[in-house]
Amino acid sequence: MIKIGIIGAGRIGKVHGEGVTYGVKNAVVKAIADPYMNADTEKWAKELGILHCYSDYHQILDDPEIDAVMVCSSTDTHADISIEAIRAGKHVFCEKPISQDLNKIKEVMEELKKSNVKFQVGFNRRFDHNFRAVKSAVEAGKVGDVHLIKVTARDPEAPPVEYVKTSGGMFLDMTIHDFDMVCFLSGSKVNEVYAAGAALVNPDIAKVGDIDTAIITMKMENGAIAVIDNSRQAVYGYDQRAEVFGSKGQVAVANDTGSTAVLSTVDGITGEKPLYFFLERYMESFSREVSEFVDAVVNNSEVPVDINAGLQPILIAVAAKKSLDENRPVKISEIQF
Amino acid sequence: MIKIGIIGAGRIGKVHGEGVTYGVKNAVVKAIADPYMNADTEKWAKELGILHCYSDYHQILDDPEIDAVMVCSSTDTHADISIEAIRAGKHVFCEKPISQDLNKIKEVMEELKKSNVKFQVGFNRRFDHNFRAVKSAVEAGKVGDVHLIKVTARDPEAPPVEYVKTSGGMFLDMTIHDFDMVCFLSGSKVNEVYAAGAALVNPDIAKVGDIDTAIITMKMENGAIAVIDNSRQAVYGYDQRAEVFGSKGQVAVANDTGSTAVLSTVDGITGEKPLYFFLERYMESFSREVSEFVDAVVNNSEVPVDINAGLQPILIAVAAKKSLDENRPVKISEIQF
Amino acid sequence: MIKIGIIGAGRIGKVHGEGVTYGVKNAVVKAIADPYMNADTEKWAKELGILHCYSDYHQILDDPEIDAVMVCSSTDTHADISIEAIRAGKHVFCEKPISQDLNKIKEVMEELKKSNVKFQVGFNRRFDHNFRAVKSAVEAGKVGDVHLIKVTARDPEAPPVEYVKTSGGMFLDMTIHDFDMVCFLSGSKVNEVYAAGAALVNPDIAKVGDIDTAIITMKMENGAIAVIDNSRQAVYGYDQRAEVFGSKGQVAVANDTGSTAVLSTVDGITGEKPLYFFLERYMESFSREVSEFVDAVVNNSEVPVDINAGLQPILIAVAAKKSLDENRPVKISEIQF
Amino acid sequence: MIKIGIIGAGRIGKVHGEGVTYGVKNAVVKAIADPYMNADTEKWAKELGILHCYSDYHQILDDPEIDAVMVCSSTDTHADISIEAIRAGKHVFCEKPISQDLNKIKEVMEELKKSNVKFQVGFNRRFDHNFRAVKSAVEAGKVGDVHLIKVTARDPEAPPVEYVKTSGGMFLDMTIHDFDMVCFLSGSKVNEVYAAGAALVNPDIAKVGDIDTAIITMKMENGAIAVIDNSRQAVYGYDQRAEVFGSKGQVAVANDTGSTAVLSTVDGITGEKPLYFFLERYMESFSREVSEFVDAVVNNSEVPVDINAGLQPILIAVAAKKSLDENRPVKISEIQF
Repeated sequence: MIKIGIIGAGRIGKVHGEGVTYGVKNAVVKAIADPYMNADTEKWAKELGILHCYSDYHQILDDPEIDAVMVCSSTDTHADISIEAIRAGKHVFCEKPISQDLNKIKEVMEELKKSNVKFQVGFNRRFDHNFRAVKSAVEAGKVGDVHLIKVTARDPEAPPVEYVKTSGGMFLDMTIHDFDMVCFLSGSKVNEVYAAGAALVNPDIAKVGDIDTAIITMKMENGAIAVIDNSRQAVYGYDQRAEVFGSKGQVAVANDTGSTAVLSTVDGITGEKPLYFFLERYMESFSREVSEFVDAVVNNSEVPVDINAGLQPILIAVAAKKSLDENRPVKISEIQF
Repeated sequence: MIKIGIIGAGRIGKVHGEGVTYGVKNAVVKAIADPYMNADTEKWAKELGILHCYSDYHQILDDPEIDAVMVCSSTDTHADISIEAIRAGKHVFCEKPISQDLNKIKEVMEELKKSNVKFQVGFNRRFDHNFRAVKSAVEAGKVGDVHLIKVTARDPEAPPVEYVKTSGGMFLDMTIHDFDMVCFLSGSKVNEVYAAGAALVNPDIAKVGDIDTAIITMKMENGAIAVIDNSRQAVYGYDQRAEVFGSKGQVAVANDTGSTAVLSTVDGITGEKPLYFFLERYMESFSREVSEFVDAVVNNSEVPVDINAGLQPILIAVAAKKSLDENRPVKISEIQF
Repeated sequence: MIKIGIIGAGRIGKVHGEGVTYGVKNAVVKAIADPYMNADTEKWAKELGILHCYSDYHQILDDPEIDAVMVCSSTDTHADISIEAIRAGKHVFCEKPISQDLNKIKEVMEELKKSNVKFQVGFNRRFDHNFRAVKSAVEAGKVGDVHLIKVTARDPEAPPVEYVKTSGGMFLDMTIHDFDMVCFLSGSKVNEVYAAGAALVNPDIAKVGDIDTAIITMKMENGAIAVIDNSRQAVYGYDQRAEVFGSKGQVAVANDTGSTAVLSTVDGITGEKPLYFFLERYMESFSREVSEFVDAVVNNSEVPVDINAGLQPILIAVAAKKSLDENRPVKISEIQF
Repeated sequence: MIKIGIIGAGRIGKVHGEGVTYGVKNAVVKAIADPYMNADTEKWAKELGILHCYSDYHQILDDPEIDAVMVCSSTDTHADISIEAIRAGKHVFCEKPISQDLNKIKEVMEELKKSNVKFQVGFNRRFDHNFRAVKSAVEAGKVGDVHLIKVTARDPEAPPVEYVKTSGGMFLDMTIHDFDMVCFLSGSKVNEVYAAGAALVNPDIAKVGDIDTAIITMKMENGAIAVIDNSRQAVYGYDQRAEVFGSKGQVAVANDTGSTAVLSTVDGITGEKPLYFFLERYMESFSREVSEFVDAVVNNSEVPVDINAGLQPILIAVAAKKSLDENRPVKISEIQF
C-alpha cells in the first residue's frame, strides 16, 4: 500500500483524488496541497478519508511516509515542482504537458538521470478502453503494416478567449493529446508535420493569435501518414474517434454514449450524442493510468508513459505551430531540443 | 452515514460489499455474515474496511448500530431472514426473488404492514443506463401509447444440469428479470401469459423438467402486448435488448460492448461481442440500486422497487410455468395469492 | 425469349410490367388485360413497348404466342383465372395469396396435377437481398441448429377501415408474408400457432372484427420456436427486420434506408427512416422473382416458390385467426384441407 | 425522346448503354462506335435494341437524327472528340477527366463559347444517393457554416504497375473524384493544396513515379479546410465515406453494403464488407447523371456538371502533384490555365 500526495486541488487534482480512493488498489491519498486550500476542499478531502490538507506543497514533499506525488498544479509549475519532488525522492506522476518550455523539460530529464524515482506523464487517453482496443489490434498485427492513422478530436464548446490567451495555443493545449495518440497508435515517432488551421468557430480567437479548427498531417518515421482534425466546438458533443488503416485492414473506434437507446419517430432514427466532455468520456482512464503508475512503483517496473513519451507530443505541437505560422511542412528535427 | 450489514458472502454479497464501499455515498458496510465465513472472505472484508465478519447473521441483526441489512443469502432463506430483520427494526434490501413460495412472500408482506422499515427488492436492471433510457423515453411520452414491449435476454452459457434441478425453473431463475422489465418499461401489470418453450440447447435440461429456450407472450393491463425471447446459451455472449413500440414511435436498446472498436478485413466488418455476463454488464446497476435504497432510508422516502413490484415477476413466472405445462394462456388471476 | 401476358393492371400488375421490361432477361410483356382498361394504362403500356391492351383477359389466354401469364387481378379471382390459364397451357405466376378459400387452392392444385405448366406464387420477399442473406447464412450452417426465428413487420400506416372490411383480416392480408418468411428462413413448417392481437392503432378496426397489432408465436416442425410482431402503423416507416438464432449464433437484418447519412446536431445523432413502404423497400425483389420464374420456364426447372410453399402461409393465417378467436394455441392439423 | 450515340464501347461505354436503355426516360441509344468493334459488342448492342454498331465514330457525328453523344473513349481522345461533336452540333456528355492536358480543356471551352450545345462532365458520384444526402443537408443549412470537409476514398485493390505508368498519376486517375466531391459538398473552390503521399501498398508504384497512399489537405475559398485520405488498396473493399462538419453539426455517410445482415458468433459481431468496387457501388449514379443530362437537353436547361465544374478537379490534381513533388502547399493560382 503506497501513500500518495496530490499537489494541486483543482479539477484534475480532485479527479485523481477520487480515482485513487475508489478505483486504485494498493494506494491511498494521504495528503493534498493547494495554495488556495479552502473549506470546501477540506470537506471533500475528509469525505474521501484524505487525512491532510495543506496550502504549501512542501509539507507533502517533507513527509517521509509519502511515496509518490501527483503534480496537478498549473502547467507552468509542473516542471519545477517535479524537480523538487524528484530531489525529495518521491515518485512523480506529472499531469500533461510536462512544460510548454522545452528547456524546462530538459531540466526534468537531467534530474531524473540522477535519480531512481519513477516518472509518469498523464496522457490518460492511452488507458481508455476504445483507444486500447485500437492499439491492441495494431500490435496484434490485425491491420498489418500501418499506412494511415486518423484521429478526430473535437471539443463540445470553445474555451473563453481569456483562457485561450494563456493556453499556449490549441496545439499545446488540446491537440497535444492527439499528437500523443498518433504516436501511441502507430508505435512510431513523427518526422514532419504540416498544419492548416483557422479561427472558424470564434474569430476573436484569431485576434489573440490562435486557431480553433485544424487539419494536421504528419509523416511518421515508419513511413505511415497521419492526420488529425480538430475543432474547438462540435455542437453535438465531444467527438473522439480514431482509425488505423494498413495492409491487412482497418480498426476504428467511434464515440461512447450514455446509453445505446435509439428513438424512432416521424422525425428520424435518433441515437444519443457522445458523452459530453473529457470528464464524462475519460473518467475510467484517470484511475487506470494511476493504477499502472502505482503498479510500476510497487513492482519497480517500467511506467507506461515515461518522460520521453511525454516529450514527443510537445515537440510535435511546437513544430505544428511553426508550420502554421510559416505555411510549410516542418521537420521535428528543426525544433531545438 | 448509515451502517449496513450484509447477510451472505457469496458472489452477489461481495458485489454489494464492493459496490457500497466504492460507489454508494452516505453508507458504509459495517459487517458481513456467512455460515461458511472463511479467511479469504475475511481478507477481502479487511481490504474494504468492513470491520466485522460473522458466521451467524444474528450478530448483525443484534447490532443496534446497523441501520439496514442486505439479504444476499440463498434464495430459500430470503423470506425468513427478511422477516427476522424487519422484526429487528432493520431496513431490508432483499435480493431477488423474495421467495419461490408465494406464501412466504405473503408472510413478509404481513410483517411489513406491522413495521416502518423500508423494504427493497434487488431488481437491479431497473437501474441500468440502457433500460433507464428506455423507461425515460416511455415516461416522457416519446413513443406515445405503448402497443408492444419486446425483451430479448439470452445467457452466454447454460448452467449445469445440477444447478437447473434446484433453480426453480428457467422462468423463476432467469426470466424473472425480464418479467420485471416488461412491467417496468410498460408501466403496467401483466394480465395473461402464454409460454412456448423447449430444451433446445441441452436435452438433459428437459430430463430434469426444465427448458432452455422460450418465447413468452403477455397481455398487459393497459392493453399492450409484450413478448420475451430467452435462451440459456447465446454463444456470442450475453444478449440483453429491449424495444418499446407505440403510437408515436419506438425506443430500443442494444447490447453494451467493451469498446466501440470495429475491425475491417478481408473477412468482414467485425465489432466486439456483448459484455460477457451479468457481472460485466450490470455492475454499475448494483451500486445504483443500493444508492437509491440508502437515499430512501436517509430521506424516509419511497424505495424504487417495493415488495409489490418484487411480487409481480414471481406471479408471472408461476403463471408462465402453468402455461407451459398446460399449453394454454394463463391469467395471473388464476394464480392463488 | 418468352412472351408474358399480365392479367390485372393495378398497382402490382404495373410493378411487374416495369420489372419485366427493365429488369428481366429473356422475357418480354406482350399484352396486359384489365376490365377497367383505360387511356392512361394504354399510354403506360405503349411507353414500355407492350403491344396489346385488352379489357378481357381471355384474349391473353387465347394468344398462342404467349407462354406465361402473371395473375395480378383481385385476390378473389386469383384461383379461377389460374385454373383457366393452366387449362390454356400457360405457365402461371400467381400473386399472393392464391386464395383465401382453401377449397379454391385445392382446385388449383388438382388442375396442376393434370398439367405440365410451371406455377409460382408471388412471395417476393424471399428474393430480397436482406432476407436472402439471412437464408444463406442459415443454410450455410452459420447459426447452427435453429432455435428461434423472429420477424418484425410493421406497416407505415394503417389501411382505411373500408379496406380492412374486405381484406380477409390482418393475418391473411399482411402477416401472410411473415408466415412465409418464418417457413423460408427456418426451412421448416409450422406445427402450432398462438396469436395475441388487438386493435390498438385504430379502435374502428376492432368494430369490423379485425386487429392491427399482434404477437404470434409458432412451434415449428423442427423444434424451433418462431415469433412475429406486427403493427399496422409504425410512424417512423416500414419496419422489416428478422433474426434467426441458433446453437452457433445469430444472423439478423435491419431496415434499409435511402442513404447512410447521419446528422449530428445539438438534438442528437439522427439517421434516415426506413424506406417508406413495400414499393420502395422491395422493388428489386419483384423483378428477381420473375427472373427466376422465367428461368424455370426457359430451363424447365423447379420454380422457387411452388404452390405448396404458397399454401403454407394461408394455413398458418387461418390457424392464427382461429387462435385469436378462441384464445388458445391451434395446431395446423386442425385446419381442414 | 432524344437519340444518343455512344463513342467508345469499353466498360464505361457499356455501363452507359445499359443505363440509358433501362434507366433513362426520354432517351434511346441509336448507335455505338468503337475502333475495336466486334461480334460480342454487336450481340450486346442487339440485345439492348441499339440499331447501329460502327467502328468509326464519325458515322455517329454524321447522323442528323442523333441529338447527343456520350464520349466514353480513352482519356487522351476525350477533348478532341468533344470538339468534333460540338462542331457537329451534338450535345456532349464527356466522361471524366475532360483531359489531362489543360490546353486541350481550354480548346473545348473555346469551342463551347461558339456553340449552343450542352456539355456535361461525367462526375457520377454527385448523383449518388449518399453524397446527395450530404449535399442536401449542407445546402439546407443543417450543419451551418462549413468548417471541415473529409473524404475517404480507398480502392479495393491497386491497379497493375503497367496501368499506373500511363494513368496520369493517382491524383488525376483516382483522387480526381474526391477533389470534385470536396468542391461539390462544400459548395466552394479550392485555394491551396498540400499533399503527403507514398507508395506503401506496392513499392513498384514508386519506381514508376507514382504513389498509392495519400493525405491531401485543401484550404477552400470559403475558409473551410478539407482533407482527403486515399489508398489504392483497402483489403476489406471499396471504402467511400464523407463528412461535412460545421457550426451547427455534422453530416456523414458510411459505406453501402449488399445487405444489412449481421452475424453474431463466438468470433464476434460481423457485418458485410462494402460493395466491392465502383461498378457495384455507383451503378445507379451512372443512369441518374445521364437522366439529368437528357433533361437539360430536352428542357434546354443548365446541365448539373458543366465544363467549369469539370475543370476544377483537374486543376487541384495538378496542384496536388506539384505539392507532392516540391513538399510545400501549392496555390491553385500557381497553375497556368
